[in-house]
Amino acid sequence: MNTIKVGLIGTGYIGVVHLEILRRLGGVEVVALADPNGDLARRTAERFGVPKVYADAASLIADPEIEVVHDCAPNNAHFDINAGAIRAGKEVLSEKPLALDSGESGALVELAEKHGALTAIDFCYRYYPVVQEAAARARRGDLGVVRAFAGHFLQDWLLFETDYSWRLDPAVAGRANVVADLGSHWCDLVQFVTGQKIVEVMAELHTCVPKRFKPTGGVLSFGAGRAGETEEVDITLDDYAALFLKLENGARGNFTTCQAAAGRKVDIEIQIFGSKESYAWSHVHPNALWIGHREKANEVFYESSSLQAEGTRRYAALPTGHPMGYHDAVYNLFRDFYEAVAAKRDGKPYRANFPDFRTGHEMMRIVDAAVASDRSGRWVNV
Amino acid sequence: MNTIKVGLIGTGYIGVVHLEILRRLGGVEVVALADPNGDLARRTAERFGVPKVYADAASLIADPEIEVVHDCAPNNAHFDINAGAIRAGKEVLSEKPLALDSGESGALVELAEKHGALTAIDFCYRYYPVVQEAAARARRGDLGVVRAFAGHFLQDWLLFETDYSWRLDPAVAGRANVVADLGSHWCDLVQFVTGQKIVEVMAELHTCVPKRFKPTGGVLSFGAGRAGETEEVDITLDDYAALFLKLENGARGNFTTCQAAAGRKVDIEIQIFGSKESYAWSHVHPNALWIGHREKANEVFYESSSLQAEGTRRYAALPTGHPMGYHDAVYNLFRDFYEAVAAKRDGKPYRANFPDFRTGHEMMRIVDAAVASDRSGRWVNV
Amino acid sequence: MNTIKVGLIGTGYIGVVHLEILRRLGGVEVVALADPNGDLARRTAERFGVPKVYADAASLIADPEIEVVHDCAPNNAHFDINAGAIRAGKEVLSEKPLALDSGESGALVELAEKHGALTAIDFCYRYYPVVQEAAARARRGDLGVVRAFAGHFLQDWLLFETDYSWRLDPAVAGRANVVADLGSHWCDLVQFVTGQKIVEVMAELHTCVPKRFKPTGGVLSFGAGRAGETEEVDITLDDYAALFLKLENGARGNFTTCQAAAGRKVDIEIQIFGSKESYAWSHVHPNALWIGHREKANEVFYESSSLQAEGTRRYAALPTGHPMGYHDAVYNLFRDFYEAVAAKRDGKPYRANFPDFRTGHEMMRIVDAAVASDRSGRWVNV
Amino acid sequence: MNTIKVGLIGTGYIGVVHLEILRRLGGVEVVALADPNGDLARRTAERFGVPKVYADAASLIADPEIEVVHDCAPNNAHFDINAGAIRAGKEVLSEKPLALDSGESGALVELAEKHGALTAIDFCYRYYPVVQEAAARARRGDLGVVRAFAGHFLQDWLLFETDYSWRLDPAVAGRANVVADLGSHWCDLVQFVTGQKIVEVMAELHTCVPKRFKPTGGVLSFGAGRAGETEEVDITLDDYAALFLKLENGARGNFTTCQAAAGRKVDIEIQIFGSKESYAWSHVHPNALWIGHREKANEVFYESSSLQAEGTRRYAALPTGHPMGYHDAVYNLFRDFYEAVAAKRDGKPYRANFPDFRTGHEMMRIVDAAVASDRSGRWVNV
Repeated sequence: MNTIKVGLIGTGYIGVVHLEILRRLGGVEVVALADPNGDLARRTAERFGVPKVYADAASLIADPEIEVVHDCAPNNAHFDINAGAIRAGKEVLSEKPLALDSGESGALVELAEKHGALTAIDFCYRYYPVVQEAAARARRGDLGVVRAFAGHFLQDWLLFETDYSWRLDPAVAGRANVVADLGSHWCDLVQFVTGQKIVEVMAELHTCVPKRFKPTGGVLSFGAGRAGETEEVDITLDDYAALFLKLENGARGNFTTCQAAAGRKVDIEIQIFGSKESYAWSHVHPNALWIGHREKANEVFYESSSLQAEGTRRYAALPTGHPMGYHDAVYNLFRDFYEAVAAKRDGKPYRANFPDFRTGHEMMRIVDAAVASDRSGRWVNV
Repeated sequence: MNTIKVGLIGTGYIGVVHLEILRRLGGVEVVALADPNGDLARRTAERFGVPKVYADAASLIADPEIEVVHDCAPNNAHFDINAGAIRAGKEVLSEKPLALDSGESGALVELAEKHGALTAIDFCYRYYPVVQEAAARARRGDLGVVRAFAGHFLQDWLLFETDYSWRLDPAVAGRANVVADLGSHWCDLVQFVTGQKIVEVMAELHTCVPKRFKPTGGVLSFGAGRAGETEEVDITLDDYAALFLKLENGARGNFTTCQAAAGRKVDIEIQIFGSKESYAWSHVHPNALWIGHREKANEVFYESSSLQAEGTRRYAALPTGHPMGYHDAVYNLFRDFYEAVAAKRDGKPYRANFPDFRTGHEMMRIVDAAVASDRSGRWVNV
Repeated sequence: MNTIKVGLIGTGYIGVVHLEILRRLGGVEVVALADPNGDLARRTAERFGVPKVYADAASLIADPEIEVVHDCAPNNAHFDINAGAIRAGKEVLSEKPLALDSGESGALVELAEKHGALTAIDFCYRYYPVVQEAAARARRGDLGVVRAFAGHFLQDWLLFETDYSWRLDPAVAGRANVVADLGSHWCDLVQFVTGQKIVEVMAELHTCVPKRFKPTGGVLSFGAGRAGETEEVDITLDDYAALFLKLENGARGNFTTCQAAAGRKVDIEIQIFGSKESYAWSHVHPNALWIGHREKANEVFYESSSLQAEGTRRYAALPTGHPMGYHDAVYNLFRDFYEAVAAKRDGKPYRANFPDFRTGHEMMRIVDAAVASDRSGRWVNV
Repeated sequence: MNTIKVGLIGTGYIGVVHLEILRRLGGVEVVALADPNGDLARRTAERFGVPKVYADAASLIADPEIEVVHDCAPNNAHFDINAGAIRAGKEVLSEKPLALDSGESGALVELAEKHGALTAIDFCYRYYPVVQEAAARARRGDLGVVRAFAGHFLQDWLLFETDYSWRLDPAVAGRANVVADLGSHWCDLVQFVTGQKIVEVMAELHTCVPKRFKPTGGVLSFGAGRAGETEEVDITLDDYAALFLKLENGARGNFTTCQAAAGRKVDIEIQIFGSKESYAWSHVHPNALWIGHREKANEVFYESSSLQAEGTRRYAALPTGHPMGYHDAVYNLFRDFYEAVAAKRDGKPYRANFPDFRTGHEMMRIVDAAVASDRSGRWVNV
């Protein structure tokens, strides 16, 4: 079988998730890894039987065997890697945010169009079966007109002053932390389920923990191994953000995100209120969709390969009642992407219904608008 | 037994709740009702064995036997009734909002102080046992410093264009609908649990349903009996509102309220994030308090007459596990108020720890700030 | 108004619940209390303004003013009080279990029929609005044929060896503890919702905690105040019981009850499986009814004065979303009973749809069958 | 890398789950499939790039390249496949139940010991991270002495008379249906978490749906494609079962299972009551463990790679809050098994802590005891 050859850049937490999911897919093979932390890259390659390890992203991108590049590097490396891979004629699946600002992300969209690259961005939460169900119901009219929406994305891994991450450093993360890291996921869910674009933002970015102790030796994501020396640093980026949002059709929404919410882990909640019914979904119990009604009992729809709306059953792969998890959501996204990659390679038609660099750019524009709104204290167009 | 004599004005839905709860209390007797809808007042008096029915509020207030007035009239009657009762030397328990704006509510606070009246306002949700528990834990330092908070108050009784209420008419309801009706309850919860005042507001008020069909014959609360003739009217007041809030200590919060959220009934949710732990409470299952932690398992505290914090056990009157309901929350508030009334009458010391007209005035100021912020598109001091 | 005059025997925990609920009802007046603990009786009478206190049950029963007797005494006093009250021409509302065994309870049923007494027994859990809803749906055919049912009733107040109660003493409690105290409530729910009688039982009664420390000075329910001297006693009655059950139509059920289930308070769960749909109800969040389906999404029905089935709306007295609690369930039962009492007094027709002494006798027969089955290790007919 | 070579027999639903999970594992390669339905086997091989397809199990077992056999065939083929694979010197991972009765399963245990085969059986539910957590807490003494346990395993795929499965045919499934298929999983959970063996059983097996329409053309699991001709057949095997259980230490338990429970999918619930605390776990939201207490608030423990008990963190592979699903539970079991296989091959020590054929045999003995108990109406020793 002529498998699709993949090179993966960045072998931290999210890089390993990509690796495991790529293994599950049929017809795909990871042939190379790259990470500035060479030891980490080598250990990961050995564990997963990946033949090649490159010292830097550019060398991996230059490998002619590689057809698809996965960009799992930190935010400030995204632009160069994504641009380089497109210019080298690769297809690209990038982690979010797509780049440091919407100038960069806009350039990437243009570049991808120019080169005809297939692109994807890992907004994976929309790939839980019942999130797909909500979107399908909205598309077929069950929701009626969307009027309002609300929710949050809460974590607690930055609760204490002793917690630190590169995401808090503007030089690496860009002009925003939590509104970019978590807010972009949530705004993608809004646009995906409602089918409407976010067009206006009023934002408040806030730093709950203005002083932190930063390890002098560098840190990984999710802050493991903080044993060594630290220095006190001033934090200027947001660890709390609140957004008023408007959709194209005038619907209003409100969103809160925080990384210092004790006890909340990857706690995403979204509620969508239409003129006919409502949807609510929580990532804490991600297989249940609440459907709200006024004139009859509310429903709780559990992921189901038999009851899901047309076109969404493939995302609930197991017999009803076998819970899907985070890995399965990422798998669903990757499968959609690689079906398109395979079809493109074979000259067949394909449907690029996964989130791509245009989606990533839309999210960057929202984040940029949020930063501008916070500075001006006023509503800002996206 | 020399019972405390009560007169109650307004015999709609909330008036009947007051009546039932007053009956449960020992040492208190409802001796008179008044309602412009005389038939309704008479039927209610008969059902509950209330001896006197007055044609108008002023006559009831003038009755010298009455020591305490309950004001359950619509918003636009609150000022006159509350002011009249205070001037007549009565104690007053008023429904919220206290008045049509903070000018009126400020005047009532002054009047009450001048006359030495005991006042209360029916912010009943803080009287569920586990809300008291959250506040007690925050007071004794378990929460650490409050940093952020979020939540919503959602209903669906105004979902359809055929739903109408006097709360949508500025002439009766004042300058705001949902932010006053529901938002005031939520802001009271915030202040009560955190022990901090709300000092700044950024608001968006929005009308999801801008045209409605109004019964030409008038309507009761919660829209029963819409059988008859209607006319189409333009709605200008908010049925959706979003608020960014700041507390005295700089903590940030975000709140969403809507009366067109299909499937949501009296769905209040509040989350408080401190530097040590978090609290979350939902009115849908009101006897459970979620307590969030970073370094150990989260807790779910169920109301308990044995495990509640010191000073709050009296609000969980039954053996643990016998669920308390809305009636019990109102009962708890009334009991606190009438214990103070009885002590004052007997010349004994008392602790007025229930929400009073100062609380009601604070909420009116927040509502006024929200209306001003919505008009200016900017943050406004309370 | 010619109120109905009530005398109440037994002023412990459940007696006070009766008193509070009787106060809420219109047209009813508690005129006398009796309790062997005279101090407790007097303090309670003072607190609630009850004019008469009797030293013993017989004296209260002999009071000609009293029309209705509430029997809140311990199990071993139930027969004499209930029989005496009926013979004295009173109507009777008794706590459960109705008597110490089915011989006694059968005699009470006969006596009540002979004297034409209105009787009720406090199986209050069926009076939560959504339990009524489940029964109404089953009656109108939504459930189809009932095929199976399962559930539990769990508490933890007898978890530790230092917990003791008269319910563990066969001389006071009869031949069974938990299967009688909690099992009878659960079996009443089964019969009420399904409309079928339980006809056969296979039981296991077990003592999880075979030695306990009994206060030498006596104890109240729910074991408050165990400060004093104790003696070690052998426990022979069940604190765990399991029951296989068969209904008239052949449906099978399975039930577990335990008073040593750490963390469970008044945790009742019942699931009913029909040929068309299923119901599940939990007392921990008592206002939600789960309705299970095979070919569409499951439903969660929240108590609702507008959406409940015909004939059950009166039990959801408040606008939808105002949670009902334990007090409201007891109130609903008492209201049904006193409407019948009032109608009988006025010579009007009435519907005695509340649980009465026949229900109590049925439960005693089930408990007796369970005890016999446990001894023989075989199935026993009820 | 010298990968471990695997052959898989049976390519229906559960066979495909095995295939996907085997792909995710490093160091393992599926080299052959076998299924009596040759078309199905070939399509599956093509989809997953498996090089060899055998027409029957025996041929696959005879393939000398294959080191490990996965037995995903129907129950009545388990004995021959498992025995054949062991005799051929393979390691074996079998689906459950291990065989048709405990005579067969006992013989398999002996055979595996004689040949020194590594064996595993797919009791996967114990591999959710928080089930491991519960077991670890019980082992270290947090639970105290286990006293009682209760729960259920409910499904609805056999709700209607038009549902049919080979599991209802004694010739294929053996002497029991649901008590073997689902009951064995639940009993494994009990033994795993408590660390105690089940020693005595009282059972009731019941057929809720005694007549069904069987497709004349045969059926797959979970009954897809029932379009064609059917014939009415009498069902004699159980689709409902209830079990009283005793553990070695005298603890009592009660279990209900049913495949006709409308709205319940793979609804497993288990509660364990110890002398110090309690555990409850539900497969519907499988990442939360409820921990019950008497003298403090209950806890809800969410799977966590940082907070899990020593030795169980590896089963919660992702940062806390990324939900694990069914695939991840199976992955965890497979990984433990293949680490032992790899160690054995390399002559290194290993810890066979996964469920193996002895576990499978214990479950068969419980099922046999249940069948015997149902026939005699008495308790039966395991």
